[in-house]
Amino acid sequence: VPEALPLHDNPPPPPSPEDPSYGAPSKALTSSIVEALEASDDAKVRTLISGIHAADISDLIDFLNHENRKRFITAIQDQFDPEILIHLEDDVRPEIVQILGHAHTADALAKLLPGDAIQVIEDFEEDEQQAILSLIPEEQRQPLQEALAHPEDSAGRLVTKNVVSVPEFWNVGQVIDFLRKEKDLPDDFFQIFVVDPKYRPVGAVSVSKIIRNQRAMPIQSVMTTDLKLIFPDMDQEDVAYIFRQYGLSSAPVVNAEGRLVGTISMSDIVEVITEEAEEDIMRLGGVSEADVHADMLQTAKHRFPWLVVNLLTAVLASIVIANFEGAIEKVVALAVLMPIVASMGGNAGTQTVTVAVRALAMKEITAVNVLRIIRKETFVGALNGLALGIVTGTLCLLWYHDPVLSTVLAFATFLTLVFAGFSGVGIPLLLVRLGVDPAIASGVFLTTVTDVVGFAGFLGLATWILI
Amino acid sequence: VPEALPLHDNPPPPPSPEDPSYGAPSKALTSSIVEALEASDDAKVRTLISGIHAADISDLIDFLNHENRKRFITAIQDQFDPEILIHLEDDVRPEIVQILGHAHTADALAKLLPGDAIQVIEDFEEDEQQAILSLIPEEQRQPLQEALAHPEDSAGRLVTKNVVSVPEFWNVGQVIDFLRKEKDLPDDFFQIFVVDPKYRPVGAVSVSKIIRNQRAMPIQSVMTTDLKLIFPDMDQEDVAYIFRQYGLSSAPVVNAEGRLVGTISMSDIVEVITEEAEEDIMRLGGVSEADVHADMLQTAKHRFPWLVVNLLTAVLASIVIANFEGAIEKVVALAVLMPIVASMGGNAGTQTVTVAVRALAMKEITAVNVLRIIRKETFVGALNGLALGIVTGTLCLLWYHDPVLSTVLAFATFLTLVFAGFSGVGIPLLLVRLGVDPAIASGVFLTTVTDVVGFAGFLGLATWILI
Repeated sequence: VPEALPLHDNPPPPPSPEDPSYGAPSKALTSSIVEALEASDDAKVRTLISGIHAADISDLIDFLNHENRKRFITAIQDQFDPEILIHLEDDVRPEIVQILGHAHTADALAKLLPGDAIQVIEDFEEDEQQAILSLIPEEQRQPLQEALAHPEDSAGRLVTKNVVSVPEFWNVGQVIDFLRKEKDLPDDFFQIFVVDPKYRPVGAVSVSKIIRNQRAMPIQSVMTTDLKLIFPDMDQEDVAYIFRQYGLSSAPVVNAEGRLVGTISMSDIVEVITEEAEEDIMRLGGVSEADVHADMLQTAKHRFPWLVVNLLTAVLASIVIANFEGAIEKVVALAVLMPIVASMGGNAGTQTVTVAVRALAMKEITAVNVLRIIRKETFVGALNGLALGIVTGTLCLLWYHDPVLSTVLAFATFLTLVFAGFSGVGIPLLLVRLGVDPAIASGVFLTTVTDVVGFAGFLGLATWILI
Repeated sequence: VPEALPLHDNPPPPPSPEDPSYGAPSKALTSSIVEALEASDDAKVRTLISGIHAADISDLIDFLNHENRKRFITAIQDQFDPEILIHLEDDVRPEIVQILGHAHTADALAKLLPGDAIQVIEDFEEDEQQAILSLIPEEQRQPLQEALAHPEDSAGRLVTKNVVSVPEFWNVGQVIDFLRKEKDLPDDFFQIFVVDPKYRPVGAVSVSKIIRNQRAMPIQSVMTTDLKLIFPDMDQEDVAYIFRQYGLSSAPVVNAEGRLVGTISMSDIVEVITEEAEEDIMRLGGVSEADVHADMLQTAKHRFPWLVVNLLTAVLASIVIANFEGAIEKVVALAVLMPIVASMGGNAGTQTVTVAVRALAMKEITAVNVLRIIRKETFVGALNGLALGIVTGTLCLLWYHDPVLSTVLAFATFLTLVFAGFSGVGIPLLLVRLGVDPAIASGVFLTTVTDVVGFAGFLGLATWILI
């Protein structure tokens, strides 16, 4: 009989504040499951995971290697909890869907809430999507196809159709009676929307407000009319902004005629916020997506193009240097010192790019303050360039005892940092203008600028003054 | 009479799906306010902002320069909405508090919910915190001091004391009567906690479930017993993990005896998720915090230390190069090509560091899979190193027609990328072991490794083989 194993390595103790760090499947449980999988003991696998939350089973799968993922899915296939699909990492899900096969996947998706099923199905390749959709019964398929008709990353993909709404002329008592008798309501809901005869939202009221007011009170007297309407074609980042800005827990979604068509809730938005931040982090790091659970070949393949783009930048820098071969031959110290200039420029520029890309995503740089921020970043570059120029110059003087070379190094450092500050904010802004995500490409362009200015500035000045 | 101006540049149209991009104060409104401020027309300023949400007024303040921030606060001082303080950017708030003065700030904080006031007050310097706290009336001060007694970034700072709880032996009717009669309940609430006689939470039930069940139904039959308990000393990142993992909308907070002491809600967690992601992004970019709204001197000052640390890395690289001055003098092509190796290593390493740091934060690298991931990243480095080695070698052959030099470049590229892969995941793991936030320091250590291995590998091999 398999022993009961703790789910987490530091399981929450029976109420006690001692480091109850939840999270990530425990080593003991994972090892036992791997053991059972490798012994092909499917019954034991099923016993070991019984009672474990779908989100934790997904984590377990993420942590297995390819062979064991296959064995695991086969073992639990007939009692596969559809929610597992939602929680899998994006770099693992395609593999699991492939193991499950189209029929089992369609089965699982049909059992999920449409909002959750969409998050899974929208990542499939076009023909796989169609193949799986065609296996889902009409009734469950229709809302999915409707959501998929909206652009990716738009509010339309997040909408829950099942929304509680009441007419504006009701009183609290009528609302309570409706809530008690109506069969077709969501399992849990927090806000009730109040609509006019054309089904346009005019207010919202929480269930707790309803329960705490007198039955005779008109609903219009207890509702808030300060609604933030969401349109299905809004970008999900804009929706997340509105939720954060106004501290919403849910918001009504309306169509072109202003009719209420559904709702978006805070829990959908949490996913969006996490996803968008993750995207910015990865893109700034030159990775197209998080790939910690992907296999070796996949990972190498998807990181390679970015390295090639960076190679072009590096080659460009080399071409710049090659133009000064003569100077380097005469003063070899130039070769020793030149990476300092380029490296400082790269670092200062990365600081600015990071702040600017994130500020653009958070709508903190707009037409109102853009000029001020460009000016500020250029001056910050100049200030730190001055300070670092003095430091690099002094270091060089101590090292090579050559005041002219030191002055050249100091001045080149200053110049590069001014350019780094200016381009650090200018490049992301330019990319936004061109409709390109600044997180994805700012880094390369910035490095190109700082490398070229750094190497050319330093070697050019040195040639001009020293040689 | 000041005209009505749109709040946003693209104000949401009366229901129509045409690009209703909310967010960021409009240029027209900001200009009018700046005009009024510069004309010292305080009355007009107050008229212009009347009816605007506190969060949007905060944005307006963020967008003003220092002088206008001062004028603006002075103009609205007597009708200052305390919520403005919550929404200000961290790099602007200290300035506003200074303009407001301690008395006005204390006044504003006393009017906020304790959970919101804490978010503001915890960022003050120790003595400013004490000075302002002492001006807040006893009744409002006490919960703040209690929260501040918990460590920074712990769950204790997020707890809302005002929680709705009912005894486990009640039925639905008794709960409804309690909710209708009890005066001292929060404005809005979603979940009701069910407690045993020792006040330990045993279940939770949504208000909508209460309203939809028969009065005679025992509360124990409608509640869920699957509670995730939060302890005040838990790190807020762990709390956020639990909320995301299990899709919670709120969770009970218990003390060491297991007694219910409050609740944490999803809206608090959204702030935590945004804040923690922001922190990772900034730290990976070598910036201690977002500073887009800070003034020039402040910004330069807080970015400088990081540049100095990076300078040490750059100098170390120069020292490595200096050891090969002789080789460079003989073959100046070495100086031209060496930045390629270091740059490719830096980029490949940054990719790995980014993925590893984020995966550690999201608990996706644990004891279970750590060895597999180190092995994987090293092999990914080897694979891409092989491919890029072939590319750089070929480019070098076309450029310098020197097969030996090309082989050296190819081999050095391969070697550096293997090291970059290994250190890209090894360095963050080591930092976690040492209790240091891997986001904050992985970058520098990585660049040091890739620079030293890149330059020393290439120049060393070249010296050994070519010279």
